[in-house]
Amino acid sequence: MAKSVKDPATSLSRQPEVRFRMRIRQADAVAIGPGKIDLLEAVRQQGSISAAARSLGMSYRRAWLLIDELNRTLKAPATSSETGGSAGGGCVLTPVGEKIVRLYREIEAEAARTCAPQISALTKLMKR
Amino acid sequence: MAKSVKDPATSLSRQPEVRFRMRIRQADAVAIGPGKIDLLEAVRQQGSISAAARSLGMSYRRAWLLIDELNRTLKAPATSSETGGSAGGGCVLTPVGEKIVRLYREIEAEAARTCAPQISALTKLMKR
Repeated sequence: MAKSVKDPATSLSRQPEVRFRMRIRQADAVAIGPGKIDLLEAVRQQGSISAAARSLGMSYRRAWLLIDELNRTLKAPATSSETGGSAGGGCVLTPVGEKIVRLYREIEAEAARTCAPQISALTKLMKR
Repeated sequence: MAKSVKDPATSLSRQPEVRFRMRIRQADAVAIGPGKIDLLEAVRQQGSISAAARSLGMSYRRAWLLIDELNRTLKAPATSSETGGSAGGGCVLTPVGEKIVRLYREIEAEAARTCAPQISALTKLMKR
């Protein structure tokens, strides 16, 4: 899975940072998880798997394998690759891919919102 | 962090399994996360760090370090160790430790409950 990009300001502060990560496992593998979602978003932003991989500091091979693994898990693929042409190797998200990213980010935001009281109670137990 | 104990029945089925994992990071390290919570629960159940470590397939040293790291993050410690005596080396959760475990498990359950519609929409996109 892709490492989250660290925010140096956040890393150095003592301010607690809360991360919600949801994983859907199937047949003993992570079908949908934070790494694949970060990758889909990078593909959407960069327009190709190779540029997406580069932006996440991931090898092209690893990015390709993650996307292939994701697409095999799905009824319909999350990405569509264009082969050939002068640009060559472009890749875009399908409506299914867009839906997956949207649902996943909604889940993270909704979980953090709903659990705010318990998260606040936990962080109050921590030193600043 | 401790690996989750795998349920062979679940691992072999094609039924998607959803896991919510919340991590509170501070000063670039995970202060509270699923590994530490599993460990606290194992300490509560086993009555000592060594037995807890064994039950999770973790070295005593790693378990001790994780608990030490957790306690240093907190205003008041999550565990209390008894030294000496015939049993020797017993360890129990303090009220703070119990509170942390309860809040963390509540957060997981609440997140899964609140996000059930989106999770269901995601799993419907997956092959069975």
